[in-house]
Formats: sequence, C-alpha cells, structure tokens
Amino acid sequence: MSIRISIIGFGAVGQGVADALMRTAYPIKVVAIVDSRGAVVDAAGIDLASALQRKRETGTVALPDTDEGAAADTAGMTALDVIGGVDHEIMVEATPTDISTGGIGLSHIRRAFESGRHVVTSNKGPLVVKYTELCELARKNDRYFRFEATVGGAMPAINLSNETLAGNRIISIEGVLNGTCNYILTRMDDEGVSYEHALGEAQELGIAEADPSADVDGIDTAAKIVILANSVFGMDVGYDDVDVTGITKITPESFKLAKEEGHTIKLIGEIQEGVLKVAPKMVPRNHPLSIGGTFNLASIQTELAGRITIGGIGAGSVETASAILSDILWIEQVMRG
Amino acid sequence: MSIRISIIGFGAVGQGVADALMRTAYPIKVVAIVDSRGAVVDAAGIDLASALQRKRETGTVALPDTDEGAAADTAGMTALDVIGGVDHEIMVEATPTDISTGGIGLSHIRRAFESGRHVVTSNKGPLVVKYTELCELARKNDRYFRFEATVGGAMPAINLSNETLAGNRIISIEGVLNGTCNYILTRMDDEGVSYEHALGEAQELGIAEADPSADVDGIDTAAKIVILANSVFGMDVGYDDVDVTGITKITPESFKLAKEEGHTIKLIGEIQEGVLKVAPKMVPRNHPLSIGGTFNLASIQTELAGRITIGGIGAGSVETASAILSDILWIEQVMRG
Repeated sequence: MSIRISIIGFGAVGQGVADALMRTAYPIKVVAIVDSRGAVVDAAGIDLASALQRKRETGTVALPDTDEGAAADTAGMTALDVIGGVDHEIMVEATPTDISTGGIGLSHIRRAFESGRHVVTSNKGPLVVKYTELCELARKNDRYFRFEATVGGAMPAINLSNETLAGNRIISIEGVLNGTCNYILTRMDDEGVSYEHALGEAQELGIAEADPSADVDGIDTAAKIVILANSVFGMDVGYDDVDVTGITKITPESFKLAKEEGHTIKLIGEIQEGVLKVAPKMVPRNHPLSIGGTFNLASIQTELAGRITIGGIGAGSVETASAILSDILWIEQVMRG
Repeated sequence: MSIRISIIGFGAVGQGVADALMRTAYPIKVVAIVDSRGAVVDAAGIDLASALQRKRETGTVALPDTDEGAAADTAGMTALDVIGGVDHEIMVEATPTDISTGGIGLSHIRRAFESGRHVVTSNKGPLVVKYTELCELARKNDRYFRFEATVGGAMPAINLSNETLAGNRIISIEGVLNGTCNYILTRMDDEGVSYEHALGEAQELGIAEADPSADVDGIDTAAKIVILANSVFGMDVGYDDVDVTGITKITPESFKLAKEEGHTIKLIGEIQEGVLKVAPKMVPRNHPLSIGGTFNLASIQTELAGRITIGGIGAGSVETASAILSDILWIEQVMRG
C-alpha cells in the first residue's frame, strides 16, 4: 500500500517535492496540496503534472471554479481543515520560514500531530521557536518528526549525526551553513571585489534575495545552529541564545590579510561547549570548511571517530526536496517494518 | 537487556572496539573474544580492562593455564566453536583482510549467519570475494550484515548512501579512500619531495607499513571500490573488475605541472556508469577531493541532491572501532524496535 502525504505550502520547495515524486517510483501518494490561495484533494492520488502546471499558469494549485464537482469539494478548505480532515499518514510542511513567531507552520505542525499525522518539514520557524514543545507533542501522539531539510538543503547533517553516527558522542559542530553568504565570500576571495559588488552579482544570479538581510546578517545560519543545538545536542535553546555577526562589514582588505597567511574568510556557525555562535572566521585554505561557492559543509567533531565532514548543495528546490523525500522514505520504511 | 557480542580477531581493531565499549555506557556485553592463540568466554560479560591488559602482556586474550577453572572451559575452543556454540546476538569479525581468498573471516561470517548471529565486520576480504553469497546467507537466516568499517575507517560512506540518502538514486562515487596514499601524496605536494622520501616518512610515522604495496599499489582502494559497487550500486563484481593503477610512479615533476594549473594529484577510486577504476588523478585545489593528510573523502553524485561529500579519518583503531560500534548500535536499536 502507498503511504499518503499532504503537501502544505506549494512554493519552490513544495513544488520540488512534487517534481521529485514524479521522477521516482516510490510508494508515495499525494492526497492533498494546499497553497495560500486554495487546496486540491484527491484520495486516489493527485495528478502531480497537472497540479504543477495549474500552479504555474494560475498561481494556485486549487482547481478553477469551472471544474465544478472537484472544486466544490475543496472550496474553502483551509490548510488546517486538510491536515485534520483528509486521511493521510505524513504532512509535509513547506510554508515560508518565520523565525520570530514560528509562522503558520507552527499551527500546521501542531494540528498534524494532534490528528495523528507524522510530520516532515523544511520550515525552520516552528523548530527555532517551539522545538521542545513540538517534540513532546510528537512523542505524546506517537508520531515521527523529521526535519533534515531545515539545515543545509541537501546536506544531511542532522540524520548523519543522530543515526549514521550512532554511538559517537558529538563534541562540537562548526559549519558553513548558508549558500548565499558562501557564494558572496567566495567571490570576494577569488576576485578581490567588495561586499556590495559580490552581493549585487549574487542578486542578479538569483542566489541572494532583493532583501538579503536574513542571509547576510547571519540570521538564517543562526536558525540552523539553534536547530542543530536542539536536535543533535539535546539542548533547549532559541534564537536569542546565539551570538550573531553577519558578513556585511567584511572588506577586500580583510581577505588580502587572510590570504597572506594562507587563510580565507567564511561565515561559520558553531556549537562548542554549550556556546552558540555565528561569525566570520579565518579558515586555513586546506581545511574542509574552506569549501567554495554555494556549497554547505558541516565539520562534526566526535568522541571516537574524530572529525567527520558532510557537505552538499545548500539550497535549491530539488535539493531541499531530496532531503524531504529521504525523511518521508525513512518513515515509510519504519512503518513497513 | 544487554545485547551480547563476540569479538573475533583481537588486533588493533578488535582492541579498539573493546576500548570504545569501556568508554561508553551502551547496553552491549562482550561474551567472547577470540584471537589467533586462544579464546576467552564469559556469559556474564568479559572484564574488558583485564582482557586488554592480558593481550598486551601475554600476547593473547586467552587466560593462562594457571587460572584453572575458567581456562579449562575455553581451552582449545576455536573461533568457529565460539561463533557456533556461545550464545550471543552479534559476531564482530575483525581478523586481518585477505582479498584474494577472503581469509578465515569468510568461514567466520558463514558460521555466524548459520548459527543465527548478526554480523558486523571491518574485514574487506569476505566482502570482496563473496559479497553476494554472504548477503544471500544473511537474508536466508534473517540476520543483519553491516560493514561500514570496511570502507574509509570513520567515514560513514556506505550507511550514508544507503540510509541517510534514502530516496536519492546514486549516480557515481569518486573517493580518496586510502589514508596512507593520501598522506604520501600530500607530502609530495606540500614539500616537493620524491615518492620514496614521502613513503619513508610515512613508514617512520607508522602511517605506512614495512611492505606498503597493498596501499601504494592501489589494492586497498580497489577493494573498497568493489565493496561500494556491490553494496551501494547493487552490482556483483570482484577485484578483477577494477582497473587499478597505484601511486609509485608519480614524480615531483608531475606535481609541479599540476600545481601550475591549480591542481593537485590524488589517488581516486571511482564508480562511474558501471566502470570501476583506481588511478592517480588531477584534482582542482578547491575541490573537496583535494583534502589533505590521512583524511578520506567520498564525493557522491546523486540524482536529486546533487553532489554530497562525506569525509573522515581513514584509519586508526579507535576510528574504525567507531564505525563498528555504530553498526552494532544500529542492530541493537532495530532489535529493540
């Protein structure tokens, strides 16, 4: 039997999940998709190609009014209605991140656990704001809560630490965790250009957003550090527990000085002896953290295995979708026994 | 209840496992240890500190004849007797690798599955020679077969590919998979010295063996490529299916030329479109595979997630033991449900 999932939030990541599912032959059936303008529900499995096309052409996944029967069924259904009322096993939460309040994703996840759904998410907000509460809710309802996609796109740092490295006490983590910052710093290092120049270039390429502050001020990296601290180190911390410095003050001169000593500069998020920090740091050129471009990399210091590094593309809808898919399949395999 | 294990082979890796278990509080009880000169068995759990001390002082883990009662019980017990006759759940096979015949490890693993034991091993030989047969035997007896420690010491490439990256079709793998070769090549690159000089240095430091051929001729890397091909790509290949070139012919001049183009030289094992190859290769300096020292790194090209890299210390008894321990704990967790 196929496992049934809902996709709540149908932006780049949600569409990436649908796209990845179309390309694979896994026993996963999408029975509901919700975006900010409407919903589509089909217990027999939604036609993903049509759903993606409809989203592209009309701006929403919801069926147009002319498609009477089907549209009437789902007209006015909210995300919470779908999560609570449509039979399925896994709710995929892919709405935009709001790390101040947790955003609508927080209520989606609560409703999912209360309705007996497992949760897989790429949304950092709920995890930064209410990690402990959500884990408790998952436990109480005997459901799984997986969120590999929240940290570093395709780079599987969380599941690697908690599962593949089982038996290894993790001592500390340092990471290049934001692809936008890493792209900007790599260009400054390679070409000797100013921060403003490299940022403009990243914006032209779609690597940085028009308002780049969440990335360049270190906020996104700090959110990931909070998630790693809570999920890998078993801490109970929030955004305010991180000491955060961004990359906006770094000058071409700093790079020149670093270069003279065989170093480069990276925005490093770290968890070390209970202290959470995000700041630009000198990194030796032959160190794994000197990785360039939009790549992300985590350097995980373990008690027995020494240093383990894990790297991957830090963003992109298909890459993030791949992390969601791995989490879905993990649950599917555990349920199958 | 504790899970009961035997340790068959008590060299550097076997002792590393005992050492790691002494440092941790996991529910794992060692009920038998066998080395080439004898065995010790204790259903209540072997005192690991004494066993390690005895091995250091007498050259064997077996109890001396004077310790009558206990010694009498195990006198003359072979590894096969212990595997078949002593009650336990997991057999840890850590005897030396023989990739031509599979060595004694092959019969140990067969006996273990036939006796209803799960198997965790660091021994490449049986996997290179009889992978398909052993997997079939494991399946038939409904036992687990785990061998993360066979490839790259602490670097968890196999379980990462098969479990953490579930849902991602793996397209190709390229890896720096031998710490000894990587150390030699890193020294040649950094210092401009000859192969012979760097090898001598590695031998002095205990990084290369007196007879370094298994490492420097690429044999060890090829064995790991065979194991990855069989376990990650589902192939059914052996050592003869790999095209192997070692590092003994590389000159300081080659490094000079590589440097001029911003490259270095690494011994790369690769699996690409069904072709298995080990050979020195030019690698750009900012590429993850340019990693230096005794570090190992695998670059895994996936369909959805793009390139994922995983790195770790390539050898060392504690590091290899950590991979064995992760595999034991994986089985322990699955058994516990």
